[in-house]
Amino acid sequence: MKLKNIPTFADIQRVHQNIQPYINTTPVLTSTSINEISGASIYFKCENFQKVGAFKMRGAASAIMALTPEELAKGVATHSSGNHAQAVALSARNHNTKAYIVMPSNAPAIKRAATKGYGAEIITCEPTLEARESTLAAVVAKTGATFLHPYNNYDVIAGQATAAKELIEEVGQLDILMAPIGGGGLMSGTAISTKALLPNAQIIGTEPEIANDAYRSFTTGTMQYNTRIDTIADGLRTNLGAYTFEIIKENLDDIITVSEEEIIAAMRLIWERMKIIIEPSCSVPFAAVLQQPERFKGKRIGIIITGGNVDITKLPF
Amino acid sequence: MKLKNIPTFADIQRVHQNIQPYINTTPVLTSTSINEISGASIYFKCENFQKVGAFKMRGAASAIMALTPEELAKGVATHSSGNHAQAVALSARNHNTKAYIVMPSNAPAIKRAATKGYGAEIITCEPTLEARESTLAAVVAKTGATFLHPYNNYDVIAGQATAAKELIEEVGQLDILMAPIGGGGLMSGTAISTKALLPNAQIIGTEPEIANDAYRSFTTGTMQYNTRIDTIADGLRTNLGAYTFEIIKENLDDIITVSEEEIIAAMRLIWERMKIIIEPSCSVPFAAVLQQPERFKGKRIGIIITGGNVDITKLPF
Repeated sequence: MKLKNIPTFADIQRVHQNIQPYINTTPVLTSTSINEISGASIYFKCENFQKVGAFKMRGAASAIMALTPEELAKGVATHSSGNHAQAVALSARNHNTKAYIVMPSNAPAIKRAATKGYGAEIITCEPTLEARESTLAAVVAKTGATFLHPYNNYDVIAGQATAAKELIEEVGQLDILMAPIGGGGLMSGTAISTKALLPNAQIIGTEPEIANDAYRSFTTGTMQYNTRIDTIADGLRTNLGAYTFEIIKENLDDIITVSEEEIIAAMRLIWERMKIIIEPSCSVPFAAVLQQPERFKGKRIGIIITGGNVDITKLPF
Repeated sequence: MKLKNIPTFADIQRVHQNIQPYINTTPVLTSTSINEISGASIYFKCENFQKVGAFKMRGAASAIMALTPEELAKGVATHSSGNHAQAVALSARNHNTKAYIVMPSNAPAIKRAATKGYGAEIITCEPTLEARESTLAAVVAKTGATFLHPYNNYDVIAGQATAAKELIEEVGQLDILMAPIGGGGLMSGTAISTKALLPNAQIIGTEPEIANDAYRSFTTGTMQYNTRIDTIADGLRTNLGAYTFEIIKENLDDIITVSEEEIIAAMRLIWERMKIIIEPSCSVPFAAVLQQPERFKGKRIGIIITGGNVDITKLPF
């Protein structure tokens, strides 16, 4: 049954049990050298090792299991050229139903192929927001499929919340939890799990300076939108949704923004010192720690590494 | 006390206990997509997450702890421009003694810096084997430091053996253990641990086609040497030593060689599907599995991922 309100921690516990067969319990990695460089003790929850290579699998697995058998039989739909598309496609396959994915005509061939590889039907549209939304509406009208929004959906938020839940259950006390903010699904879920399990921990969101809608929305108290989306952190170009903004406004202690140079430098450090492949978006929280060493010195910090789907033939270093 | 003979499994157990405070118990990773591609169930023991980024830390930690207090006080020495240099440098720092590292003048600046960063004294020599050996001999004569050979040393072999020991203790029954062969220290240790813990498992070494000294030594029964060392798998350019050849001859079931193209393709698959950074040398065993799918189909295979020290600005893809 679909969640109608902001997920409680009890909802998240139930969702976690339900999605268990469809997700990986990802490892938490630490690095002596990263800790020496930052002066903090950082616990990285490695969702780059999640199925489809990103935390998005948690939310998609949760949302598809909230459907009635009748809804499920008609399939699911979404528009995305990224990790959410693959997560919805794999979730549909896991539940023997159909996924309809609306993708812009300029989506990378490798992402189309990966989504198709999970058995989804891809519907190509012009690369504009209007075309995406109208094409999706037409698909939903024609097929009766349920639209799974990538973040403005309480079942998706409850699914994303299970990453922080696993992290805290594994490592225990943390002073600070950090995540990047794109549409805000992961940040919202992280906040709810953290408030429940570590009521005294600080919850800090992080964002690229040049796509700082969440920072401006948080500080002004009203929804603001990105005017630029040319950040290298391609997972964070999205604006908040109404659901995620409400949770973020209520639960976060702060949002820190970082420059493109800081993102690339932090990404390179994680690649070189931790030997893991992460998307630029993932390095944003670590970049924030490096930006403000005095603030984070000696703290135990949990960071959600969101995904590892990056074109390794086109690196920024 | 230094080991005088081929390590027994009891020796390896003792060494493992001794070096525990100085090494990471590295994770074992699996990947649904890698298993689908290969048709096998592969358990990757991720020594790229080891201290200094490579399994070499195990052997160095073991060898330095075999020294008497008098020997230890005079320091340790080796010639290497790679992972062994860093492992010896860090081990010396861990035991409050000095490391003298002979490096060729053309060693990459980043490797010199990393070794120096651990507090080692670097002695530069001409980039020839003769210069390396004579410079090292002069350092040892002058300082009284003990030479820690990178592989032709039973304490080093016992240390490297702990990687396979941990892997088997974690995942249990395996049909096949595989590792790459450079000087043969890791392969020798892997063979001893496997024979003790899984007497029925096959032990398969792997090597680049163009630096196949171990393959030719194994098949002819007498030591052969590399005539070319221009393989991308820079950790595997070394020839076997007398100690490692004896263990390999006695314990291996087979050695498989792979082409440069196969190495690069396997490396790319591991990067893209597993989201981990591995050196080209590490992908040699997986390349062998892909080369002979019928042979490995349905098998439970353990592979030691040897390290992750690669220049991410100079990738082969």
